[in-house]
Amino acid sequence: MRQSWEFFSTERVVFGPGAIHKLNSILKRFNAKNVLLITDQGIVKSGILDRVLHVLNESDYQVIVYDQAVPEPPVTSALECYEFAKRQPSTDAIIGLGGGSSIDLAKIVALLTAHGGHPKDYFGENAIPCPIAPLIAIPTTAGTGSEVTSIAVVTDTDTNMKVGISNNYLRPAVALLDPELTLKLPPYVTACSGIDALAHAIEAYTAKNYKYIEAEGEILFQGANPVSDALALQAIELIHQNLTIAVHQGSNLEARSNMMLGSLLAGMAFSNAGTAAAHALAYPIGGLVKSPHGEVTGLLLPYVMQYNASVEAGKMSKIAKAFQVNTAGLSDAEAAQSAVNEVFKLLEQTGLPTKLSAIGITKEHIPEIAEKALTIERIIRNNPRVPKLNSFMEMLYQAL
Amino acid sequence: MRQSWEFFSTERVVFGPGAIHKLNSILKRFNAKNVLLITDQGIVKSGILDRVLHVLNESDYQVIVYDQAVPEPPVTSALECYEFAKRQPSTDAIIGLGGGSSIDLAKIVALLTAHGGHPKDYFGENAIPCPIAPLIAIPTTAGTGSEVTSIAVVTDTDTNMKVGISNNYLRPAVALLDPELTLKLPPYVTACSGIDALAHAIEAYTAKNYKYIEAEGEILFQGANPVSDALALQAIELIHQNLTIAVHQGSNLEARSNMMLGSLLAGMAFSNAGTAAAHALAYPIGGLVKSPHGEVTGLLLPYVMQYNASVEAGKMSKIAKAFQVNTAGLSDAEAAQSAVNEVFKLLEQTGLPTKLSAIGITKEHIPEIAEKALTIERIIRNNPRVPKLNSFMEMLYQAL
Repeated sequence: MRQSWEFFSTERVVFGPGAIHKLNSILKRFNAKNVLLITDQGIVKSGILDRVLHVLNESDYQVIVYDQAVPEPPVTSALECYEFAKRQPSTDAIIGLGGGSSIDLAKIVALLTAHGGHPKDYFGENAIPCPIAPLIAIPTTAGTGSEVTSIAVVTDTDTNMKVGISNNYLRPAVALLDPELTLKLPPYVTACSGIDALAHAIEAYTAKNYKYIEAEGEILFQGANPVSDALALQAIELIHQNLTIAVHQGSNLEARSNMMLGSLLAGMAFSNAGTAAAHALAYPIGGLVKSPHGEVTGLLLPYVMQYNASVEAGKMSKIAKAFQVNTAGLSDAEAAQSAVNEVFKLLEQTGLPTKLSAIGITKEHIPEIAEKALTIERIIRNNPRVPKLNSFMEMLYQAL
Repeated sequence: MRQSWEFFSTERVVFGPGAIHKLNSILKRFNAKNVLLITDQGIVKSGILDRVLHVLNESDYQVIVYDQAVPEPPVTSALECYEFAKRQPSTDAIIGLGGGSSIDLAKIVALLTAHGGHPKDYFGENAIPCPIAPLIAIPTTAGTGSEVTSIAVVTDTDTNMKVGISNNYLRPAVALLDPELTLKLPPYVTACSGIDALAHAIEAYTAKNYKYIEAEGEILFQGANPVSDALALQAIELIHQNLTIAVHQGSNLEARSNMMLGSLLAGMAFSNAGTAAAHALAYPIGGLVKSPHGEVTGLLLPYVMQYNASVEAGKMSKIAKAFQVNTAGLSDAEAAQSAVNEVFKLLEQTGLPTKLSAIGITKEHIPEIAEKALTIERIIRNNPRVPKLNSFMEMLYQAL
């Protein structure tokens, strides 16, 4: 039995409509002169980059912009961006502006800026010796939580595989969240990223308790602990109450704010507690179909909750309460089932698929998906019920 | 109206029975060779220092021990300890081991180690230019939350006044919490420190919302925000459920763990949201009588809750729920009153005074106490109901 848990945090979170106007005072705290801003073409076209540059122009920072970030950035991208940064005499601070991919790329470049080398040198866990360059993450979606997590996902261009670099030093120094930047996100992107945040929160909350995680030494995903529980439960309530509104009323700033807050809290929770079966299964499914990550984790979520309900009925019942279900007179098992039903309802209300067949998965794929997911030890060991091949496949057949 | 809030955190929290055994791996992360350990005579006599040194001796750190910390450390103490540290060629990491005073002293020494100068140079807020030396805080009580806060209280030896140095850079880099270190705390110390943690949690939770704090620019105590709320409410529940047990069954490790956790969460909450009227009033009372700080804040707490109930009945009602009061059928105002009653009950069960007269305050002191408290702007402005001299005095007369 493990005796202790750890909780790692981003040192500073700044949150609120208009919060990007605090960017200059944040940079000042780092004594920064030369700033590298990393973003993507979508952010350029949306006009968000101009808004951020407008703020930066109020002070006299030297800013260079790399605007070629792409989803699941290839390691060659990170090297290219790192070389690009050398146009300045120094890189005192790095800003990652965009969805999870821009922020992930900024993490890798901040790592190379501090320690040199090649991204491959740092694949896996715990290969980073000390802090990365000062990094400010400014998310423009509400879902990945990347602004506060210790993980960067890149594509290994040699093998064409998605690889994670995970280390507590990868957490951005500052997470700057301005919900106004999310007001124009299309409904489908809002739905996919928002339901992913719900999957983060629910998988972190129902993750196996840290005491019972079967692992030796220091691990990044440690299972549920009291701090991650408090944050995750709050995230669950916020996301359930606001996702449908944010999808259907994109300009509703209150719903957007609450979604961004829910995503933040979920990120703080899962980056310590870890995720579980829905995320393990999403990896092999992501290799088979082109669905966005959140669409896959969201679709799997209610099935995984049902799969786990027998060993975590108490916590599932608390999720039902956070969903505003009247649980008076219900057993924990009944309350757990009502929580599952609520997630199905949320998928339907936000126009997301509830069946694997709807995203192109067929019966023939199931064994391979189950087998591959079971090999992702650092996530699978977090699942409250120990997943076995047969029961996993049975669950996936039900989800077809 | 303020548009945004910020949340600052200690980067790493390590928590659990036996967690002090992780001290070496924590120091390794700082690449530390020369370590300064700051503690007090009580910790030496209790044998706790030996236990920590025993752990450190498993590795080859050079450790020097300054064991002369005293309550509300005089600035001369900080200078003396800073000079003492110079016996080593460098100070790579500092450990603060003990109650709030040892940790506060360690914060000031870590500040001087990084920036030189005199403690007086840093009085007030925001006078620290960049991070302090790596500091690991190991609390041996459950109450101050100093292991995660941005505040150090010292005594200005010229004026003999208590002065706060407040800055987000003062947060220790690591908070290492081992509840086994608190097993032998006497009941009275347990009660005073535990009720102080409850006062931190309740005052942070019911602090004025960040939107409505009347202040310009960056402030340390920002009012209630969603993250501080989630942490504070969890703290309120934990402390209420465990304080009486910890006082009456000192060796109950579960109760001790939950109290340490409650104190940690309360520290994370109030160091961002701030405290309110009970803490403002405790300053002038602390100047008049010798009661421990927690005895005073705890005594004042139910009266202040009653004073504030009319403007924060909703949150008071949630406190009642966290106290396990059955609030079904109660109005918010009735539920708020039941929360007040629960705090009185807790004071009685833990043997703490419920009347100001019991700690030596008389009718004649009241006007001076109220007047002085009202001048502590950074705390008073956090109180949900705007305190006025007459109503403040009326409340204090009731508490006599």
